Amino acid sequence: MQRWPCTVANEMSRVIERCEVLAQISDSTDSISRLYLSPAYREGLLLVEQWMQAAGMSTWVDAVGNQWGRFAAVDPDAPVLIIGSHLDTIPNAGKFDGILGVVCGIEVVARLQAAGSTLPFHIDVVGFGDEEGVRFPISMLGARAVCGQWQPEWLELADAAGVTVREALLTCGLDPSKIGEASRVNDRLLGYWEIHMEQGPVLEQESLPVGIVSAIAGACRSRICFTGDAGHAGTVPMNLRHDALNAAAEFALSVERFAITEGVVGTVGQFSVFPGAVNVIPAKAECSLDLRSIDDDVLARVLSEMQTTSRAASAQRGVTVEWDVYHRAEARHCAPHFVALFEQAVAKHGQPVRVLPSGAGHDAMLMANITDMAMLFVRCKGGISHNPGEFVSANDAEVAVDTVLIALEELAKTHTADTRSTAS
Amino acid sequence: MQRWPCTVANEMSRVIERCEVLAQISDSTDSISRLYLSPAYREGLLLVEQWMQAAGMSTWVDAVGNQWGRFAAVDPDAPVLIIGSHLDTIPNAGKFDGILGVVCGIEVVARLQAAGSTLPFHIDVVGFGDEEGVRFPISMLGARAVCGQWQPEWLELADAAGVTVREALLTCGLDPSKIGEASRVNDRLLGYWEIHMEQGPVLEQESLPVGIVSAIAGACRSRICFTGDAGHAGTVPMNLRHDALNAAAEFALSVERFAITEGVVGTVGQFSVFPGAVNVIPAKAECSLDLRSIDDDVLARVLSEMQTTSRAASAQRGVTVEWDVYHRAEARHCAPHFVALFEQAVAKHGQPVRVLPSGAGHDAMLMANITDMAMLFVRCKGGISHNPGEFVSANDAEVAVDTVLIALEELAKTHTADTRSTAS
Repeated sequence: MQRWPCTVANEMSRVIERCEVLAQISDSTDSISRLYLSPAYREGLLLVEQWMQAAGMSTWVDAVGNQWGRFAAVDPDAPVLIIGSHLDTIPNAGKFDGILGVVCGIEVVARLQAAGSTLPFHIDVVGFGDEEGVRFPISMLGARAVCGQWQPEWLELADAAGVTVREALLTCGLDPSKIGEASRVNDRLLGYWEIHMEQGPVLEQESLPVGIVSAIAGACRSRICFTGDAGHAGTVPMNLRHDALNAAAEFALSVERFAITEGVVGTVGQFSVFPGAVNVIPAKAECSLDLRSIDDDVLARVLSEMQTTSRAASAQRGVTVEWDVYHRAEARHCAPHFVALFEQAVAKHGQPVRVLPSGAGHDAMLMANITDMAMLFVRCKGGISHNPGEFVSANDAEVAVDTVLIALEELAKTHTADTRSTAS
Repeated sequence: MQRWPCTVANEMSRVIERCEVLAQISDSTDSISRLYLSPAYREGLLLVEQWMQAAGMSTWVDAVGNQWGRFAAVDPDAPVLIIGSHLDTIPNAGKFDGILGVVCGIEVVARLQAAGSTLPFHIDVVGFGDEEGVRFPISMLGARAVCGQWQPEWLELADAAGVTVREALLTCGLDPSKIGEASRVNDRLLGYWEIHMEQGPVLEQESLPVGIVSAIAGACRSRICFTGDAGHAGTVPMNLRHDALNAAAEFALSVERFAITEGVVGTVGQFSVFPGAVNVIPAKAECSLDLRSIDDDVLARVLSEMQTTSRAASAQRGVTVEWDVYHRAEARHCAPHFVALFEQAVAKHGQPVRVLPSGAGHDAMLMANITDMAMLFVRCKGGISHNPGEFVSANDAEVAVDTVLIALEELAKTHTADTRSTAS
């Protein structure tokens, strides 16, 4: 019978310590920056590889620069559960976004190893590259390669300095011709689990260390341009104006209103007016809309309602409006059986069970294309992310590791039972 | 008995022709630019001086760079009616803003001279400098000197190139030590009349060649800063947001609503959000407010209502708001007896009488400090001003000149009668 090391508590600061140590590896002297395939990114992989090996894993880096470590089952043909997140950062990043999930995955394995546990499936811990998508004009290259979606023309995409993906891979000692081999599409996968800091304020608000993700919201981004007529702020009476800003302001408020009533999130993050003089009626207002929902149908309906409202707000003022919906991503639902498993594990740990959507995108979004996916959110301070102020407590990281260990125990039982029933 | 040349029509294209000729005199090769005290401004004065002399006026340039011409009454001690506007322009200007009023003033005198008319008062036609206020960090220096408001420290104000007012005056051959002599405060003034293109769409909308100004609106300018909290557009639920943009948008719409219901004009011309990323909830929104009314009490009340609304819109979202009301100018009312005189003249010319406020500021605003003031607006195309597209028709300019001539005839009668009754 296996011993489950769920009560090992005081070693847990190792997760946070490792996040702190990784934060020291940066391309910048005064902030955290490990852009995909940068020198610091490469150096970070070496350190993570050491941690993986110390936890008893065999390691490799695939051709797209993802770091892998395997905690092997006895049976070499056993299926694989992948646990991971990403190791790249934005410029001037925090210490936990992505990193936490990789380090927690390694910690889970370290606990299993320390306890002498074995599992009826391999655990592959992965540290993905390029989740942030800030270096090249594309994102999640690491996960895309693993999902078998790699497009050869991506090798020619260049960063701001003119360095192509191909050149960056070669500089890291990686072989672009072998990216196809990074695909895990044909492997026998049990699923993909990702631990990630929440990047939002919900768990903190509700005093919960962890939350179970129901789905990664679908997203839709648009640019909306309102065009009216400029005019003298003093000489054009209100009834003869074609004020583009006021049409846009009414639109922005409708986004807020619809989002609240429809249970989605909607954000106007960019807003500019032209010519932008104190005494000139705005001839043009341009704004962005970021709309997210875990229900694609709701998202489509809300988008349509917002378009209708923007047209009414414009028509009323003799203003025209043009929409450019330039990005759409469908919602990705976590596998219900994993959600149930995590609910059970959280409850067994003695924590309140909270299921919440992920408004942000994650590698898990891509992984959902090839296997069952689940995510566990860890509380963060003030909902702050993409910022040096990111903070996750040692206690909460501990709860996450424990929860995953409990879930693994359950999964192992089920899997063993399944295997038996299949064998019988 | 005097002959009034009101029916002389076909010469009238001279007004428009002269505006066109002045437009050729520019500091820029590809647009109209005669900034106060620039080489082109100085050259423009010489041309205007020639036109004044051709109309029988004695001419002078005062020490602040205003161009003057006197059509003298027989009695050297007769009072003075000043007719004028400004000769400076913004960069990339139109042909009529300011210029039209000066040229029409000269045309009025030319008609009087051609008809052999004499008046019981002097007419001083003036072309002011610096009405636009774009060169130095102050405006209407010409009119301020004439109104005896000149401050010696203004001589040290510098333009973008570091040239001070003093240096610019000296370069134009003017004597800064004599600016005090430009004041007309102690003169026996009958009034100040200004013909100006409307710079708004009202007369065009109502198919009227001219309109009589009731008052120059008071104005109030503010900068308003809304401060909330940034956050991830996907991960912060609507109820936990402190979105500065939405508070500012609600404020902007309230400006529009209050302005309509209160009969004032209110414009949010500047609007910026920070950090301004598509996927970040705006932490800060800054906007401007330009508010104008011919009733100072209404203006104050509306400003107060808007401040209250901005605070409510902010409080509702956990956002703070700060106001900086950085400019206030009181409304200036046209002298009622001149308004009545212009109404009579417009009617006598056979045009519908339309009295309307001036939302824009004019030299007349300053002149109201030292004498009775009146303004006649001339229809312009599309309400366009401060733009190369400015257009005033020869016919409308003709109507304006005729109207002023009729008004002068009436004023002359009244004045003569007054003088007689005073003498008797």
